[in-house]
Amino acid sequence: VKTLAEGPLADWELQLWNALKSLGEKSLERVGRDIQSETGLSAADFGVLSRLEDLGGGTLRQQELADSMGWQRSRLSHHLTRMEERELVERGEGKTARSTALTITTKGRDAIRASRPVHAKSIRRHILSHLKAEDRKLLLALAYRLTADD
Amino acid sequence: VKTLAEGPLADWELQLWNALKSLGEKSLERVGRDIQSETGLSAADFGVLSRLEDLGGGTLRQQELADSMGWQRSRLSHHLTRMEERELVERGEGKTARSTALTITTKGRDAIRASRPVHAKSIRRHILSHLKAEDRKLLLALAYRLTADD
Repeated sequence: VKTLAEGPLADWELQLWNALKSLGEKSLERVGRDIQSETGLSAADFGVLSRLEDLGGGTLRQQELADSMGWQRSRLSHHLTRMEERELVERGEGKTARSTALTITTKGRDAIRASRPVHAKSIRRHILSHLKAEDRKLLLALAYRLTADD
Repeated sequence: VKTLAEGPLADWELQLWNALKSLGEKSLERVGRDIQSETGLSAADFGVLSRLEDLGGGTLRQQELADSMGWQRSRLSHHLTRMEERELVERGEGKTARSTALTITTKGRDAIRASRPVHAKSIRRHILSHLKAEDRKLLLALAYRLTADD
């Protein structure tokens, strides 16, 4: 067991922490901006619709979706209400009385299918094209090490 | 100018994209969980209170805070209402009629000061202790390259 330093974070420690946070945040921001401006879907819309297609074959329980996105149920619920108004998704009864099933509409399916190429292109442009072979290796190794179970 | 691949993302491309997103997300989640369980502040509370102290000397305009956190104004406003109810912050009039000034209370100051050591320890435990010298170098280089202005 390693002994950890004590006291406030030193500048170099803060710099690493901020680098780690900003890597993912900035990348998500950029890709989200491209999708928004080219397709009208927000990053959150894209997250919802792509999960409905990929994980649920078109339908998921609202709670499964919340878990997969890491969102609180109330935040997701507000967002889904707006997506329902735009006719991208439909809510219905789930298998039990208390669960809600969420289904992608035809309009939602068209929207996510039109957005996927924009998503792929944006990820390549902003991220993948900047990674050398050694960066790729390190990124995968780091993600594995830092996100393994405690 | 490099030519980018076309078509859907290949598995290895998706894997890198997911690694990049999960690095920051999982790290934030873990540090947030430690702060929550040891101090009762959520990660968002910590973000608000630490910015009030570090950037504003105790007071910030609500819009400045929203910009710094990358949150939409309405989401932040809801959150601040709950923090005001818990007496961690106070809202007052800003310099112009339409701006709102947000000030940390004594209770908020006590809370953030008690949380900082937990924050530092958690970052060291979950992240810094797992980084070798070469990881640190690459992480900083990657963050610099991927978050530079387009």
